Amino acid sequence: MQIGIIGAGKMGGTLGKLWAAKGHAVMFGSRDPAKAKAQAAEIPGASGGSISEAAAFGQVVLLGVPWRAAIETVTHIGAALNGKTLIDMTNPTGDGMTLAIGHTTSQAEEIATAAAGAKVVKAFNGIHFSLLEKPVFSGFKADVYYCGDDAEAKALVAQLIVDTGFEPVEAGPLRNARLLEPLANLWMQLAFLNGHGTDVAFKLLPR
Amino acid sequence: MQIGIIGAGKMGGTLGKLWAAKGHAVMFGSRDPAKAKAQAAEIPGASGGSISEAAAFGQVVLLGVPWRAAIETVTHIGAALNGKTLIDMTNPTGDGMTLAIGHTTSQAEEIATAAAGAKVVKAFNGIHFSLLEKPVFSGFKADVYYCGDDAEAKALVAQLIVDTGFEPVEAGPLRNARLLEPLANLWMQLAFLNGHGTDVAFKLLPR
Repeated sequence: MQIGIIGAGKMGGTLGKLWAAKGHAVMFGSRDPAKAKAQAAEIPGASGGSISEAAAFGQVVLLGVPWRAAIETVTHIGAALNGKTLIDMTNPTGDGMTLAIGHTTSQAEEIATAAAGAKVVKAFNGIHFSLLEKPVFSGFKADVYYCGDDAEAKALVAQLIVDTGFEPVEAGPLRNARLLEPLANLWMQLAFLNGHGTDVAFKLLPR
Repeated sequence: MQIGIIGAGKMGGTLGKLWAAKGHAVMFGSRDPAKAKAQAAEIPGASGGSISEAAAFGQVVLLGVPWRAAIETVTHIGAALNGKTLIDMTNPTGDGMTLAIGHTTSQAEEIATAAAGAKVVKAFNGIHFSLLEKPVFSGFKADVYYCGDDAEAKALVAQLIVDTGFEPVEAGPLRNARLLEPLANLWMQLAFLNGHGTDVAFKLLPR
């Protein structure tokens, strides 16, 4: 394939190197074309130029700019992206691992507001009931991610997770239910709609 | 611990059984106390009653009702939850694996709007640059989840994921970037703030 890589960061640079090594034609594009050319010079089969040149070159275009620059960048490129496959690998991460775009609350936070005085901990939402008595997958205890704002409450819940045989994985404050609720939906998407079935579970794998 | 389980579903029923087997005192609570008592009768060390009774009983209270009933249920319980640890395991899932609460758009969808005519695919956002050249974790290819609305574009991206040595995992339409962007933030939370370090990656493990 012909691949245009927009942005001269570590992600785009490494992916460009890997794809060039697989025989793809890679062109780096940067606001500073000299930087893109220098990046390309170290990779056989790669070239460099402006953002617009790299976008025009690619059958597939990788958007590798900082997330706050993404909308401005694609607007700048304009019609050259028409019909192209555009890979978005940006993450709209705000302060404290919050999501800066489109995520404003969670079920757990709403429950905490309604249950005044309760120490709400989000947990077990990513585990299908059919898996509860079989926590080990491929030799690993599957993860139960949990989050909350009260340390004592979280310690109790961690023990209750241990008691089920799953791996308790502490995931920060209650607002991170905005991260854990989507994870359950991803599991449902993969299990029910993408053919993986329900006998699968997420794990943060170590090296 | 004394654990109150609100709702008589499969999740709560199974967790109650597992926790009772570990020596915890479990009380099931349901809008139909007879149903909760019948559920408890099969489990040594468990009892059953009304929702309010189970909430009053528990040092830890598990909220195991359907998500649409969660707010109403905790409001109904009221002051009995004050100071208690409340486990929220509900998932606010709407039609087509959408999130019904607090999630209204994603960076990828905003980019697709700005890059008119481009076939946007969300991918690689959950992989730290330092992992790109080392895709295998604990003997497994780590997952690269991707989503988009154009089948041909997704096929190209899947091939590019294969070319990096990662496992391409198809995750539905572009709006599911609302699920994949939070997953990257969860990785950042665990890697940077919860001590797991950056040499970890998510995998949907098979049995």
